[in-house]
Amino acid sequence: MTITITAFERSPDRGRGLARDMRVRWALEEVGQPYEVRLVSFKAMTEPAHLALQPFGQIPTYEEGDLTLFESGAIVLHIAERHGGLLPDETNARARAISWMFAALNTVEPPVFDHSLARILERDQPWYEQRLRALEESIGKRLHSLSARLGDADWLDGAFSAGDLLMVTVLLRLKSSNILDEYPNLAAYVARAEARPAYQRAFAAQLAVFQAASSG
Amino acid sequence: MTITITAFERSPDRGRGLARDMRVRWALEEVGQPYEVRLVSFKAMTEPAHLALQPFGQIPTYEEGDLTLFESGAIVLHIAERHGGLLPDETNARARAISWMFAALNTVEPPVFDHSLARILERDQPWYEQRLRALEESIGKRLHSLSARLGDADWLDGAFSAGDLLMVTVLLRLKSSNILDEYPNLAAYVARAEARPAYQRAFAAQLAVFQAASSG
Repeated sequence: MTITITAFERSPDRGRGLARDMRVRWALEEVGQPYEVRLVSFKAMTEPAHLALQPFGQIPTYEEGDLTLFESGAIVLHIAERHGGLLPDETNARARAISWMFAALNTVEPPVFDHSLARILERDQPWYEQRLRALEESIGKRLHSLSARLGDADWLDGAFSAGDLLMVTVLLRLKSSNILDEYPNLAAYVARAEARPAYQRAFAAQLAVFQAASSG
Repeated sequence: MTITITAFERSPDRGRGLARDMRVRWALEEVGQPYEVRLVSFKAMTEPAHLALQPFGQIPTYEEGDLTLFESGAIVLHIAERHGGLLPDETNARARAISWMFAALNTVEPPVFDHSLARILERDQPWYEQRLRALEESIGKRLHSLSARLGDADWLDGAFSAGDLLMVTVLLRLKSSNILDEYPNLAAYVARAEARPAYQRAFAAQLAVFQAASSG
């Protein structure tokens, strides 16, 4: 059955791989599943046809036969459950990898995402500097804990898993700041993930969409 | 095998059921699994013994034999996968329920949690009113979408699921504001969940911890 995902027609990150379709593309590349992409304009994202697939008007969505899913975390988990390579076979290790998936999205991503957003939307506000410092403190707490747990291991818990995949997509959002520089093992962890052939194929695919839209 | 979870020795919400152990207690009550609770002080949460279970120094954790999990979302999913009553049997419906779990934690919770936090931490800041309005706008967007999707259904997608359980625990955080009043179907959805016997047992159990600590 054909897998179809949705992505921004023109990504606000200018093809830097920060939009959430990147997670799904990367997961599909890791497990070797081909997929098609339907590009969606900002206007179309607010219209009933898209809202039927994604109640919050976001991307990505995932369609496969009569199954429609939304939320990048849920889609990555679905892919990881159906194909080998993203979750350990052993039951306890599998549950622990899923803990890291939720940690990436529910514990690490919120302050990281707020930080990106504040840098775009709150730059002219009187509270900007103070708010940025507060967010950097929250991010620093999370990164300190993550760095301590990772230590000198390659991945968070044994082999590369969907937990690492999601965590790296969250940390990549910090690349345009200097925040990761303070945590050399986390910077190396991100670089290790970016070097994976599956990551590179997914990155190239989303960049090609942006370049085509820009030259069109 | 005995299930042991951790919870705050003295919950900052004063027993209103907003700490994240509530999600796990409720899920265990829904599936009829007994559990033990180990209470953790704020000091102990920062110490190596707890960090070995929870790398970010939070609660809850989940221990069962040689399995240790963290992140309330992952723990609820683990419980839902192993016991009937929180995920549909049919494969596609099950994947959709998991989409709602991630939507609760990754799309709806971040602005709701920021709003609670701002009301505690930023009350004396000069930007407080403006920041609160910005957060209320973000929350309003999410609630508008959620309300439109729920319509007059009892639950988000068929029978009550772990997706509803997590979504309700997020919405409950808005009870101390008047934000939910604008969405009568969401207010009724929360009330319907609170009326479930499993919710009530879980709520009573966490309240008893706070009451015992306060009288001690």
